[in-house]
Amino acid sequence: MPPARNRRVILKSRPLAIPQAGDFEITETDCPEPEDGQFLVRNIYLSVDPAQRGWASTGTNYRAAAVLGETMVALAVGVITKTRHAAYAAGTYVYGWLGWQDYAVIGPSDVLTHIRNPSVGLSAYAGVLGINGLTAYLAFNSLGRPAAGQTVLVSTAAGAVGSVVGQLAKSAGCNTIGLTGSDEKAARCVARFGYDRAYNYHTTALESVFAGAKPVDIFFDNTGGSILDIALRHMAVGGRVVQCGTASIPNWSPGPTGLRNEREVLTRRLCWGGFVIFDHIAKFEATMRLLEVKLQDGEIVFDEDIDEGIERAPSALARVYNGENRGKKLVFLG
Amino acid sequence: MPPARNRRVILKSRPLAIPQAGDFEITETDCPEPEDGQFLVRNIYLSVDPAQRGWASTGTNYRAAAVLGETMVALAVGVITKTRHAAYAAGTYVYGWLGWQDYAVIGPSDVLTHIRNPSVGLSAYAGVLGINGLTAYLAFNSLGRPAAGQTVLVSTAAGAVGSVVGQLAKSAGCNTIGLTGSDEKAARCVARFGYDRAYNYHTTALESVFAGAKPVDIFFDNTGGSILDIALRHMAVGGRVVQCGTASIPNWSPGPTGLRNEREVLTRRLCWGGFVIFDHIAKFEATMRLLEVKLQDGEIVFDEDIDEGIERAPSALARVYNGENRGKKLVFLG
Repeated sequence: MPPARNRRVILKSRPLAIPQAGDFEITETDCPEPEDGQFLVRNIYLSVDPAQRGWASTGTNYRAAAVLGETMVALAVGVITKTRHAAYAAGTYVYGWLGWQDYAVIGPSDVLTHIRNPSVGLSAYAGVLGINGLTAYLAFNSLGRPAAGQTVLVSTAAGAVGSVVGQLAKSAGCNTIGLTGSDEKAARCVARFGYDRAYNYHTTALESVFAGAKPVDIFFDNTGGSILDIALRHMAVGGRVVQCGTASIPNWSPGPTGLRNEREVLTRRLCWGGFVIFDHIAKFEATMRLLEVKLQDGEIVFDEDIDEGIERAPSALARVYNGENRGKKLVFLG
Repeated sequence: MPPARNRRVILKSRPLAIPQAGDFEITETDCPEPEDGQFLVRNIYLSVDPAQRGWASTGTNYRAAAVLGETMVALAVGVITKTRHAAYAAGTYVYGWLGWQDYAVIGPSDVLTHIRNPSVGLSAYAGVLGINGLTAYLAFNSLGRPAAGQTVLVSTAAGAVGSVVGQLAKSAGCNTIGLTGSDEKAARCVARFGYDRAYNYHTTALESVFAGAKPVDIFFDNTGGSILDIALRHMAVGGRVVQCGTASIPNWSPGPTGLRNEREVLTRRLCWGGFVIFDHIAKFEATMRLLEVKLQDGEIVFDEDIDEGIERAPSALARVYNGENRGKKLVFLG
């Protein structure tokens, strides 16, 4: 039997802004073989994460950039098909650094979580039970420090992270306001994710969102930019700003300019913190179990937007940044 | 005997930027009389605080603005000369909301600290033992969270707050870098306040301060503006930014623009907090006692720049913002 073939999404050029389909190409090689201490994983769901924009550039300091000419750095859910590690049996499902490809040879340090309950739905482990849900839970609780009755504002409120934050905030007894990029998403924020109010920031003057409302105690921000500037000017004294992403900024080199915000930090005594989920790997398994329970209890719902076939991966990031996805973007390989 | 006369520095116009002498005028009235529960204080040292810029405008949310045509809101050290409050005996020295004037009628809520040890030097209670030293101690420890071996950067490093932060940081085993507005002040930062390095930011390219150096764990910022922008880009992962002032910004209406900083907050996982000393009044007495001991032990030294005569008060804030003072600016009334 000839060896299986491995299709890989290669990073062809380093994007200065949002990665486009043309920054990648798909190549095919023989399937790699695990060495001692490694195992071969067949990928099932490739994850499409806004953070890959940073991984594709040289601009982050929490992860080495993807290598030009090599497989695009990505998370995925897969199943071990061949193993040379005693603790990782064939047939085990894992979530981790598998790359945008059919097959990955990895070691234990590339595994983020062990999927012990695939009946929940394998895809969930790449989203609401993967870094998106983990980010929502850990960032909101550690940096947000919610209390009942407080007002929580979420940008990208219908997204894979934001939709979970909104539900966690509602569960914590907070008043929730969502900002999102379309009327359909704003309606879904209220109907499906339980936001008290939600707005399409393309068509709503944000000042009107805050007019007459109580100031914001927690701003969970995935966008940055002018949304951030306006929100900061409506924070409560002692408010917390959780900086989880900067999706609204198309290009950081050179960096854009905007309103100076240090006076808001000072006079409102804000606590503005940055959150990167990979600082918290030690908490992944336990937090994932906790989110599994919330999922099974119906306390958290989630949406997925699943493409089929690896040829859909190269364009997927641009589609997410354009707001074309309806929930967590995944690529199903079968 | 005719009643004593009270000279008062009146706020004549609301400054849009840094208050100038012309924004004030000195008027004279009869000395006020205390009513039941009040006491009359003869002011000895008027305090000149950069925060008065905010108190003179409508721009702060932690204190009601000074009233046009009324005595300029100010802190001072004085002695009780007439009392109608059983707990406040004549002859007692106090520090509090006394205003820029010769005499003040106040009640207990206007007193910030009781001066029980005037032999330390009365003037110290308006500076290193007043809000400046209290700010340094409480902000540096609560928001800065110093640890031995860490790098601490202080802007306005020779000032009434910054000089204390530098010394506290050195005592905590930190490496200290000072930024200040003249060569003389930079030299004094090293020679007198024990900074490991100090620079005149008017003549030093700030990038060179950081070149080859360890990243900054704690930035204690009193200036904001471009100094802040550059410092943020040299923070360590997990660094803390203590926003204690924004002295470099001449005008906040309309607010100035600058580099966008949310990506620094995110990727460096900064914790950027605002500090206003009047949130911490309950800690004033105990912290002042602690600083008194450090002063008497020689662990902290301080400089004062004392003008004589109330007619020096109206121009004092502009002189402080111009960097003309050499230590805590006070006006001595005799």
